[in-house]
Amino acid sequence: MPKEKELVFGHKNPDTDAVSAAIAYSYLQNKLGYNTEAVALGEPNLETKFVYDHFNVKYPRIISAINGEVKKVMLVDHNEEQQSVSDIRDVEVTHVVDHHRIANFETKLPLYYRAEPVGCVSTIIWEMYLEDEIEIPSQIAAIMASSIISDTLLLKSPTTTEVDRDALKSLSETAGIDYESYGLEMLKAGTNLDSKTTQELIDMDAKSFDMNGTNVRVAQVNTVDVNDTLKREDDFVNDIKAENDKNGYGLFVLLITNILTSDTTGIIIGTDDAVAKFETALNTKVSDNKAALPGVVSRKKQVVPPLTEQFD
Amino acid sequence: MPKEKELVFGHKNPDTDAVSAAIAYSYLQNKLGYNTEAVALGEPNLETKFVYDHFNVKYPRIISAINGEVKKVMLVDHNEEQQSVSDIRDVEVTHVVDHHRIANFETKLPLYYRAEPVGCVSTIIWEMYLEDEIEIPSQIAAIMASSIISDTLLLKSPTTTEVDRDALKSLSETAGIDYESYGLEMLKAGTNLDSKTTQELIDMDAKSFDMNGTNVRVAQVNTVDVNDTLKREDDFVNDIKAENDKNGYGLFVLLITNILTSDTTGIIIGTDDAVAKFETALNTKVSDNKAALPGVVSRKKQVVPPLTEQFD
Repeated sequence: MPKEKELVFGHKNPDTDAVSAAIAYSYLQNKLGYNTEAVALGEPNLETKFVYDHFNVKYPRIISAINGEVKKVMLVDHNEEQQSVSDIRDVEVTHVVDHHRIANFETKLPLYYRAEPVGCVSTIIWEMYLEDEIEIPSQIAAIMASSIISDTLLLKSPTTTEVDRDALKSLSETAGIDYESYGLEMLKAGTNLDSKTTQELIDMDAKSFDMNGTNVRVAQVNTVDVNDTLKREDDFVNDIKAENDKNGYGLFVLLITNILTSDTTGIIIGTDDAVAKFETALNTKVSDNKAALPGVVSRKKQVVPPLTEQFD
Repeated sequence: MPKEKELVFGHKNPDTDAVSAAIAYSYLQNKLGYNTEAVALGEPNLETKFVYDHFNVKYPRIISAINGEVKKVMLVDHNEEQQSVSDIRDVEVTHVVDHHRIANFETKLPLYYRAEPVGCVSTIIWEMYLEDEIEIPSQIAAIMASSIISDTLLLKSPTTTEVDRDALKSLSETAGIDYESYGLEMLKAGTNLDSKTTQELIDMDAKSFDMNGTNVRVAQVNTVDVNDTLKREDDFVNDIKAENDKNGYGLFVLLITNILTSDTTGIIIGTDDAVAKFETALNTKVSDNKAALPGVVSRKKQVVPPLTEQFD
């Protein structure tokens, strides 16, 4: 009897890892006897589009809700329910592979959960392929390597671990790519911000966090020229204010990260109290809605934990 | 520089797996370069005492709170905060190995989390020793095998998986024990209920669950003669009523499980509404505080999930 079908997916506003980890994990699980399909919770961003075009990989089917299609799902690269499909509470989560904190996540039944504090979920899935002695197809190795480059900013983010380095090296060999030159090309492709409206940019890689009752939104864009990006500062500010009003965000943080210098400029808009908490948490000063965040490149490691701590 | 010390422990009211998995995981982590000490959140129960005496293993130091002793901890065999040390929120959880649902658990930072829906945590730790190619000392193999026998009632509980069977076989060989004959002896040692007061019995292997706002307590005792155990029915009822009053439990379920026939008789006391929910969830009738639960042996798989569903 064939196994009951399950969907595998990463978080909303998918980045390269969210989609590629879903594809890689679905392939692995199917080899192990499951019946799964990888799907994505949104359109590809610029970087992901470059990656999938470059390696001629088909982007998965896009869904926003399960709508009764399956009863069971597997999550990669997220666990918090506000980052998942809208009706996640109506299905059973049987597997999770993630590298984030655990929060706003609860199950009725025991499940498979594999988390490691590494730079990229594709790194963990690479370990699982090794443990299960399953060969990684070249195309899947290529999108997994791209995910590690993306999540670790070519191994420069402070989230990078030895295992991420080993995984990127091994996957690049399998895929036949020179990750240094390919990686820079790929990251630059993701910074072509001019083709996007400011509204699209503040939503593209944004995540919501419930911080002790305050709805906090943290978005991030990568660039090679912060001043060029800030030419549209007034538009960013107006769009963020409208988003806060519309969605009840108490705080919106837009991280504009220079991938060449590994620094960030933040646009921070929210209630006075929330902005003050941001200043204390990040040890910076918000002036004219902007804050310098030198050395900050990782939302997950350098922004969300001190901010959560401050709100608690 | 030596690593910062961390404590490793299982849940309150420890059973054989909670303590033995802590010892086995601590030994593994120390081999991998961590600096850990296994501790227990309570005295050994009758079965665990038999096991540790039989294999001449030292029972770990007992603690009830961290009290600032360490900043970081590793959890085995539980994740829900009400089952952990009283000040779990004051420390960072860096690792979890578990086989239960995930609930009432939240971290600020990414962590190592390894959960599998298998019968026993020692089974997962056995897999990790294999993955990391670390040899399991004979005494540790013996207490891990005992944990699997305990959690799966000698592979008869519906929670038992193929991996549990493989693990028990392999660990028994390493420990040099005949798990069939040893296992029965061990389970019987745990059912010597006469030496305990009813107050001790309802607390010995009890766990609390927050079910949609209702504080539900589920305790379990193993026996080879339910009628003999029920000779003290009036004392059980009085003690449970006192516990409910004292701790605000909306529902108390005591499972008296016959390990030879794999059946359970429940003593169920709570608000009318909660008892009615229990009846619906378990498809049984509570009469004179008692309910027949034929074929039920697993709190985790057969009692908590339908009860949680009913309260949601």
